[in-house]
Amino acid sequence: MVPSLATTALPLHYCSQSKQRSRWLSQLTELIAFPSISALPQHCRDITFCAQWLARHLAEIGLEHIQVLPGPKGGHPSVYADWLQAPGKPTLLLYGHYDVQPVDPLKEWRTPPFKATIIGENLFARGASDDKGQLFIHLKAIESYLRTSGSLPLNIKIWLEGEEEIGSPNLSAFLNREAKRLQTDAVLVSDTEMLGPNRPSIIYGLRGNLNCELEVSGPRHDLHSGRYGGAVHNPLQALSEIIARLHDHKGRVAIPGFYGRVRELEPAQRQEIRCSCARHQQILTDLDLPAGWGEAGYSLFERMTSRPALTINGLAGGYTGPGAKSVIPSRGLAHFSFRLVPDQEPTEIAQLLRPHIAAITPPAIRSRLKITGGSRPVLLPIRSSVMQAAVRAVQQTWAVSPVFTRSGGTIPLVEQLHRHLRVPIVLLGFGLPNDDIHAPNEKMNLPTLFRGIETVIRFMAEYAT
Amino acid sequence: MVPSLATTALPLHYCSQSKQRSRWLSQLTELIAFPSISALPQHCRDITFCAQWLARHLAEIGLEHIQVLPGPKGGHPSVYADWLQAPGKPTLLLYGHYDVQPVDPLKEWRTPPFKATIIGENLFARGASDDKGQLFIHLKAIESYLRTSGSLPLNIKIWLEGEEEIGSPNLSAFLNREAKRLQTDAVLVSDTEMLGPNRPSIIYGLRGNLNCELEVSGPRHDLHSGRYGGAVHNPLQALSEIIARLHDHKGRVAIPGFYGRVRELEPAQRQEIRCSCARHQQILTDLDLPAGWGEAGYSLFERMTSRPALTINGLAGGYTGPGAKSVIPSRGLAHFSFRLVPDQEPTEIAQLLRPHIAAITPPAIRSRLKITGGSRPVLLPIRSSVMQAAVRAVQQTWAVSPVFTRSGGTIPLVEQLHRHLRVPIVLLGFGLPNDDIHAPNEKMNLPTLFRGIETVIRFMAEYAT
Repeated sequence: MVPSLATTALPLHYCSQSKQRSRWLSQLTELIAFPSISALPQHCRDITFCAQWLARHLAEIGLEHIQVLPGPKGGHPSVYADWLQAPGKPTLLLYGHYDVQPVDPLKEWRTPPFKATIIGENLFARGASDDKGQLFIHLKAIESYLRTSGSLPLNIKIWLEGEEEIGSPNLSAFLNREAKRLQTDAVLVSDTEMLGPNRPSIIYGLRGNLNCELEVSGPRHDLHSGRYGGAVHNPLQALSEIIARLHDHKGRVAIPGFYGRVRELEPAQRQEIRCSCARHQQILTDLDLPAGWGEAGYSLFERMTSRPALTINGLAGGYTGPGAKSVIPSRGLAHFSFRLVPDQEPTEIAQLLRPHIAAITPPAIRSRLKITGGSRPVLLPIRSSVMQAAVRAVQQTWAVSPVFTRSGGTIPLVEQLHRHLRVPIVLLGFGLPNDDIHAPNEKMNLPTLFRGIETVIRFMAEYAT
Repeated sequence: MVPSLATTALPLHYCSQSKQRSRWLSQLTELIAFPSISALPQHCRDITFCAQWLARHLAEIGLEHIQVLPGPKGGHPSVYADWLQAPGKPTLLLYGHYDVQPVDPLKEWRTPPFKATIIGENLFARGASDDKGQLFIHLKAIESYLRTSGSLPLNIKIWLEGEEEIGSPNLSAFLNREAKRLQTDAVLVSDTEMLGPNRPSIIYGLRGNLNCELEVSGPRHDLHSGRYGGAVHNPLQALSEIIARLHDHKGRVAIPGFYGRVRELEPAQRQEIRCSCARHQQILTDLDLPAGWGEAGYSLFERMTSRPALTINGLAGGYTGPGAKSVIPSRGLAHFSFRLVPDQEPTEIAQLLRPHIAAITPPAIRSRLKITGGSRPVLLPIRSSVMQAAVRAVQQTWAVSPVFTRSGGTIPLVEQLHRHLRVPIVLLGFGLPNDDIHAPNEKMNLPTLFRGIETVIRFMAEYAT
C-alpha cells in the first residue's frame, strides 16, 4: 500500500464496524424500496417520496442546506445538500441518481425487484448497483467523517438526480438555473463499473447515445391474413426488413456517413486495452455466449467501449398471446438506440438516419421516426490533481492501481457537467460487470460496496491535502 | 328471376316482417354479447355460456334432440340439434361456429366489441360477420319455416362449433366420435364472403394454413445496451434478419422447396378471375393503399386466393413502453402463419421450414420453432345437385348467378368434413369484403343478412325438390 499522511485521522474503524454495516443495510433497503422508475408516469409519486426520504437522510448524517429542488419543466426533483465548513480547502461535488430503470420482464426476477434481498455476499434489487447502492457509498463516507470527528476534510456538495435513467432531459436547464449552487473544484461520480472484483478502474471516456422510436404502418387497420395474405406488404415484415438493413453483413451500421466523425483509437490505447481490459474469451464466458458479434477489425472490448453501436431495444406489433390470430397487423413499433463515440454528434446522426430510413422503407409502407433523446460522447482529461488523489485512494484501499479505461455506457450528466462547470470530473465507480444493471436480478456486491466507502473516505482526505 | 315451383309455399313473408326483424336483432345482440374468444383461456366460461344460450335458442325455434356436445380432449363444446320429420327427403347439415377472434387492439374499436351497435345499415361487433351473424341466418331460415308451416321441406341437422378460430384442433376426434350423428347428404356452410354487395359467390376452394411461433434467444438474460451494445448479437435484430430472409426480393417465400407442390391455376380459371373478381385497383382502393405487394407474375386477387403466402402475425420483445430502456433483450418472439394452396401439405411445409430457420439463424443465437396448428387446403367439386340448388336459390333471391371462386381463408372444418363425410359441401356465405373480420370494428351488413335468410329459405326448398 502507498502510505498516506492522513491515514491516522480517517474514520476507517467506524465504517468497518459490523453494527454500522447492518444499520446501513437496513437504510439501503429502505432507499431501494421506493420504485422510483423515472420512465413510467405512474411512478411519479414514488420518485417524490424517494427524494423526500433522501432529504431526511442527508439531514440525519449531518449535512446542511438540504433542499429538494424541483426539476425544470415539471421534471423529477433533485436533492441537494452541502457541508462547507472547511475554508481554504477545495470543494468536491458528489453526484448520484436515485431514479431507476423499469423492471420488466418482471417474471425473470428471482426476488421482488424493490425488496432488497441478500443472497451470499450480494444484495439483489433494482437500483442496487445503478445507482442507489453507489450513491449510498458517498453518503456513508460522509457519515463516517461527521459521526466520528464532526467534520469533513474538505467542502462537500451533494447532488442526487431523479432523471438519469430517462436521459436527463432537463439537465441543461437545471445546470443553468443552479450554476451558483453547484460551483465546485471537482466532481466525483460513482455510477460506473470496475473491470472485475478487486480490479478498480477510472473511466475517462463515455459513449453518447441517441434514442429512437420507429413506427411502421401499412393498411389503415388490421386485416385478415387469410383474405389478404400474400397481396399486402405486412408492416411487421417491412419493419423486420428495415431493421435488417440498418447493419451491413460485416456488423457495421449501414447508415451512409455514420462513421464519418468516429475518432480512431490510437495504437497506445489499443495496447492498454489488450493488456488490462476484458479479453474476448472472458467476455463470452461471462455472458455464457458461444460467439461475439459486431464490427470486423475490433476486439469485443473495443466494440463495447470505443466503437459506436446500434441496438434494437424493443419490438411490438400484432398478436403474440396464446393461440394464433390470423391477422396482418396495421402497424409495428421498434425502439432502438445508438451509442456514439467522439466526435459523433447526436443531432448529426439523427440527420443521417432520417433519409436512410426513408430510403429503405418499402412502397405502401409509411415509417415515422421519433427521436426521444440523445447525449454527446465525452472524453475526460486524466492529468488533474483530483484524478491523482483518486489514484492514491484506490492504491491504498485495493493495493492495485486503477486502470484508466473507457465505458460503453452513457451518462449525459458527465458530458454536460464537463461543458457547464469546466472542472475535472472523476468517474470512480463500484459496480461489477455482472451486476446486471438495467436487467432482471440487478445486484450489488456488498464487499465491494464497503470497500467503496473506504475508498471514498480516503479520496476525500487525499484530495484535501 | 328464375321462377320456382316451390315459391308459393316459402315463408318469405314471415321473414320480411319488421316485427320479426327487430326481434331477431335483439336475439343476435344477445348472442354477440358473449365474449366467446376461443383463443383465450380466461373466456372458457363465456364459451360455455354461449353454447348454452344457443341450445336454448335452438329449442325455442322448434328444433329437436338438442345437445351440448363436449369437445374431445377438454376442447370447447359443440351445439347440436336436428329436425328429421321429412322422410324421403334429403338431409342437410348446417354448420356454423359461435367462437370468435380476440379483440385487440381494443383501442381501435369505435364501439364496444361485444355490444352489438347498429350504425346506418351495419351492425358492428366481434362475431357480427364471422360467424355469429352468419350462423344466425341459418337459424332464422329454420325458424321461418317452423313458425309458419310447422315443418321444414327437408331433414335438417345443425352443428355449431366452438373452436373454429383456434384452427379446430379437436375436429378430427370429434368427427370420428360423432360420425353417425352427423351423417348427411350435403353440408351448407355460411362462413365466407360475397364478392361485394349484391354480388353473391360460392367458394369452391380454400387455402390451408400452418401456424408457427418462433422464439429467438441470445444472452441468458437482458443486457445493458451501453455496456454490451456492438459486441453481442441482439436477438431482436437476429429475429428481424431471420424474418427478412423468409421472402426473396420478388415477394416469393424463400424456403427451398416451398412451391414444389403448388398447383398452377389453369388459363380458364385465370380468365374467370380476370372477368369476375376484384381488380387490382379496386382492392387497393378498398384498402386505401397506394401499392400492392407479393409474388411477381400473379394478380392481387390470385395472390389472395390461389397462391400461398407467409404472414408475420405478431412480434414481441424488449421494451416498447413510454420512454427508453437501454437494453439488449435476451429474447424475441414472432408469430407467423402460412396460407397453403393445393397440393401443399402442412406437415411437409413444416419439414421444409425447420432446416431453413436453422440455416438462417446466426451464430450465438438460438431459435426455437413451434408449430401450433395447421390445416390442408381444399378444392370442392362444383357439379353436384346441391350446388345447383344453391345456384338457383341465389338467382331467385339476388337476380344474379353466384360467381364460383376461391377464398384465401382457411376453414379447417371444410377440408376435414370433405374427407370424413364424403358428401358435397356448399360454401355460400353472406359476409362482405369490408366486414373487417378478425379486425377492429367487425360488422355485418343487415340488408345482406336478411337477404341471406331468404336465400337459405329458398335453398332448402330447392334442394328438397
